[in-house]
This record gives sequence, C-alpha cells and structure tokens, in this order.
Amino acid sequence: MTQQMLLDCQKRIQPFIHKTPVLTSVLLNTFTNADLYFKCENFQRAGSYKIRGATNAILQLSDVQKSKGVVTHSSGNFAQALSLAAKNLGVKAYIVMPSSAPRVKQEAALGYGGLITICEPTLKAREEASLKIQEETGATFIHPSNNLEVIYGQGTASFELIESVKELDFIIAPVGGGGLLAGTSLYANSFLENCKVIGAEPFEVDDAYRSLLSGKIETNTTTNTIADGLKTQLGNHNFPIIQKHVNSIIRVTEEEIIEAMKLVYERMKIIIEPSSAVAFAAVIREKEKFKNKKVGIIISGGNVDLTKLPF
Amino acid sequence: MTQQMLLDCQKRIQPFIHKTPVLTSVLLNTFTNADLYFKCENFQRAGSYKIRGATNAILQLSDVQKSKGVVTHSSGNFAQALSLAAKNLGVKAYIVMPSSAPRVKQEAALGYGGLITICEPTLKAREEASLKIQEETGATFIHPSNNLEVIYGQGTASFELIESVKELDFIIAPVGGGGLLAGTSLYANSFLENCKVIGAEPFEVDDAYRSLLSGKIETNTTTNTIADGLKTQLGNHNFPIIQKHVNSIIRVTEEEIIEAMKLVYERMKIIIEPSSAVAFAAVIREKEKFKNKKVGIIISGGNVDLTKLPF
Repeated sequence: MTQQMLLDCQKRIQPFIHKTPVLTSVLLNTFTNADLYFKCENFQRAGSYKIRGATNAILQLSDVQKSKGVVTHSSGNFAQALSLAAKNLGVKAYIVMPSSAPRVKQEAALGYGGLITICEPTLKAREEASLKIQEETGATFIHPSNNLEVIYGQGTASFELIESVKELDFIIAPVGGGGLLAGTSLYANSFLENCKVIGAEPFEVDDAYRSLLSGKIETNTTTNTIADGLKTQLGNHNFPIIQKHVNSIIRVTEEEIIEAMKLVYERMKIIIEPSSAVAFAAVIREKEKFKNKKVGIIISGGNVDLTKLPF
Repeated sequence: MTQQMLLDCQKRIQPFIHKTPVLTSVLLNTFTNADLYFKCENFQRAGSYKIRGATNAILQLSDVQKSKGVVTHSSGNFAQALSLAAKNLGVKAYIVMPSSAPRVKQEAALGYGGLITICEPTLKAREEASLKIQEETGATFIHPSNNLEVIYGQGTASFELIESVKELDFIIAPVGGGGLLAGTSLYANSFLENCKVIGAEPFEVDDAYRSLLSGKIETNTTTNTIADGLKTQLGNHNFPIIQKHVNSIIRVTEEEIIEAMKLVYERMKIIIEPSSAVAFAAVIREKEKFKNKKVGIIISGGNVDLTKLPF
C-alpha cells in the first residue's frame, strides 16, 4: 500500500463524507496529563466512521457491479453506513439484519434507503441470507471490516486527524472487527515518523489482544460487553496489517468504559457510543504511558440509545 | 457602541476562552429546509457562553478593583463561569448560591475556585448575601446579564459565528436575563447588513415577548419550564438594546423544547441544555419563515443532568 494509494482513497471518498472536527478539552488534558485530540466520527454521516469504508468499497466497483448493487450483513453501524453510501452513489444496498437488531437501527438503515432483509440472529443465518441475495441479484458482498477497500476507507479518519494535528505520539482506536484499527495503522505508518498505533478492547471480548499474542485469529466465547460494536472478530485481510503496524492492544474493564463514557459526555458535551469510550478508557487506564504525549483518539461513532445510558 | 469597541472586546477576551466550532447537519437542514449553523457554546469553557461576559467584565475592572475580587449571585451557569474567569485572571470570585441549586452546580463552581456562600432560595436572600460580601470585602458586583460589559462579552459568540459563516439571514438566541440576546443583536447589527436577530423563549416564561409588546420590562408570575436558564427577567441595561436591535421573539411550548433537544442529541450527537434547544425549537415552529435561509443558532450551553434527560 503506497502513500499515493492512500491519498487517492482519501480524495475519492471526500465528496461523500464529512470532514469531522478534532476536539480538545482542557479539563481532560489536565485529568490525563496528556494532549488529547479527539477525532469526532460520531459527527460523521450516519453517525460513525463506517461510511468512509463503505463509500470507498462501492467506488472501487466496476459500473456493471454497481448496477447490480451491494449486500452486507450487519446489526449495527455498517448497515446504516452502507445504505447511505449506496444511496449517495445511486447504488442499491441489500442489508441483512438479524431480528435481534434494535428496531431503531433497522429503521435508520431503512431511512437511508437500504433494502432490509430480516433473518434469524445467528451468523449462519446471516451468511445464508446474504449469499442468497448475491445469487439472486448479482450484488457484490461488502464485508463490514474484512475487506481491503473498506480498511483503506476507514483509515482516512486518521489521515484527517494527522493533517489537522501534524505530530502525534500515539493514535488509539477501538478494535472489534479490525477494519478501523488496520486502516488507522496504515495511514499512521505511512504519514507519521514516530507514531505508535494502539488498539483498545474490552477485557470481555479480548480476541484481538489474544490474536496478537498467539499469532493467529482468536475468537470470543462470550461477548458480554456494553461496547456492542466490538463483539466481532478479526479477519484474514485486516489481521496481517494489525500484526505488522499496531504497537499493542490495551484492554479495559466494563466499569472503565462506562466511566470514560461519562467523562466525555459531562466534560466534552458530545454523545459517543460505548465502543468509542473504550479508546479513551485505555488512555485513563495507562496514564503513565501517555504522560506529556500527543495522543489522537478515534471517537468511532455516536449511535446510542439515549434512553438506556449506563449512568 | 462602535464596531471598534466590539472588536476590542473580542480581542480582549480571546486568550481566555475557546473559539467554539460551528456545526452543521445535513439531516437537520433537510428537516427544516434551511441552512442551519449551530454555534456550539456548549463546548465553551465551563460549559456555556457565560464565561465570555464574565471574562470581559473582570478585564474591564481597575487593578484596585481586581485586587478586591468580584461577587455575583447565580444558581446556574454564571456561577461556574465567573469562578473560572476569575481564576484565569488571578481574581477572587465570591459566589452566592441558593440552597436549592443542584449540588453538582455548587461543586462545579467550587472546583473552578469560586468562594461559595449558600443562602436561602429567594431573590431577597441572594441580594442581601451578595451586598454583605461587597461591604465586607470591597468586591465588585457583576450581574449575570444586566451589565454592559457582560453583554458585550456574550455577543462575541455571534461575532465568531459571523466571521465563520459570513452571510446570515437570521441569528436566533434564547432569551432569559437578556444578556446573550442583547449582545448578539449588537454584533449582528454592527457586522451584518441584512441579518435579523430573533429571541427564542418558552411560552411558560414569556416575559421578554410581553416586554417587547408593552414597551416595559415585564415579569413572570410562574416559571414552569424545563429551560432552567431562561427563568430570569430582562434588565434596564439589556432591554433598550433588545428593543432597538431585536426583530422579534418566537415562543415555544415545553413539548417543542423537548422534541428539539432530542433531535439535536440524536442527529447532531451533541449535549445541549434545554435552554439551547429553545432556539432550535423556534426554527422548527416557524419553518416557513426560515425556508431556504441561512440561520445561525446560538447553542448557549451544555450543562445538564444526564441522569434526568426528558426523553
């Protein structure tokens, strides 16, 4: 992946996404003894960074492919993101969602023009349903995180962060499926000299942490975390990138996630989803590591049920 | 008030405040059929625009006055703002707060270094307590809204908004004590050719609306609104400015305030206090008036009890 290819990706998707602001907080800097730069993808279109990768993946299809549409299975942000990205580009988006997905997320994807198919809430049912759609329509399957074009797209959030702050000692991103973390590490590695990229993950779903230790993709037996966006596992496309370019993964407890989330709400006055709080929680947990450092934090999204805040 | 005096005020306070971002939302623009520019003073230091006026008022004191400190009575944002502004400038801040003020607000003012005196929750008790402090310490009384230097300072939020957006057809600000609305109208009148300034006010505390009609300062007999920052009345310094420069006042219902607040939380992913939602509610209520117009909305603050959201 050359620098030019990453720049091309950024340029390609730019007309279809927001350039989100980078926010700082005197109070949180004082609290952590670090210079924190929050890249606010909670303000991104469809409420998360995922539209970046979705847009890039669609733009890289041929005209024939585009005419047949795209398909994915997702219970969360990628469903909304692919629906909106496809709509912006005049492409059909078939979205397979498990019946367990919150009605509000189903309605959001529908609102963005996604063609929704509801299936049983198992991975097998999701895969079967999306395979059937591919066969019937010729639509191209776009994986939410384990697709190189998606990975390149997700990394553009970090590119904008780097452009805006210039020097950074660390960039921290949450890791679930691994698309965001892999993309982040590619851009940081390509455009910064001495920036360490760190993944942040709940102890409850620490498959990425264990994967880096064992050298192979590990899975989670339970996924008992409030960070609902981080329950998925790494894939064969993003894991090698993470192995190569990510410095380490910091794990945090559920209490730490909630405490970090509350701090961001109260002090920064922005709405973030629990998965985003995981990255900030990692800084608080390992304060000494980040002392007097310039730390970029990817606030991945803001899609949260406000009637069910954990505080 | 010359243009130069307003520019001087802006320059004077700049080192002590944040230049807050102006956010936009494709969804809310589509929803209202207008171009909305949200000036996000919820991201301001101490959580509201009030530090602008507080800082300007302290900076305009003589050295002798500064050495004796400042005093105010407030149950809300001005208590925190004056505490922090004074701390930033090395000045003592005596804050009289009613015993009914939420503990979290007392602690916030205390955290910013304010010297807190708790009194009975009546205006009489508040005034007596602050008078006593003035007599004992020689501190200068700074009114939260009815003080010209405070008014000039509060208007700088609109100056930054105008600088950032250039042309605006309307600027809408909530009106409680009247400091923000008066300051807003001064800057808009001075720096824009054809911009109408509109106040937004709950029906439940429509003293400003009635004051503009009757030509004299009216009061509220009840203050049964969720917009806790807007319960105070206009004063002899800000009312003449509002009479001269404010186009009109739009009143909104409690349901409209809550609905507007929810929309901003869900769609813009920012935390605003109910008083700020009043300004956006006014746009929704009178959609036709703002159709295809460029509308600046002052999001006045974000200090809200997250455990007591009205939705």
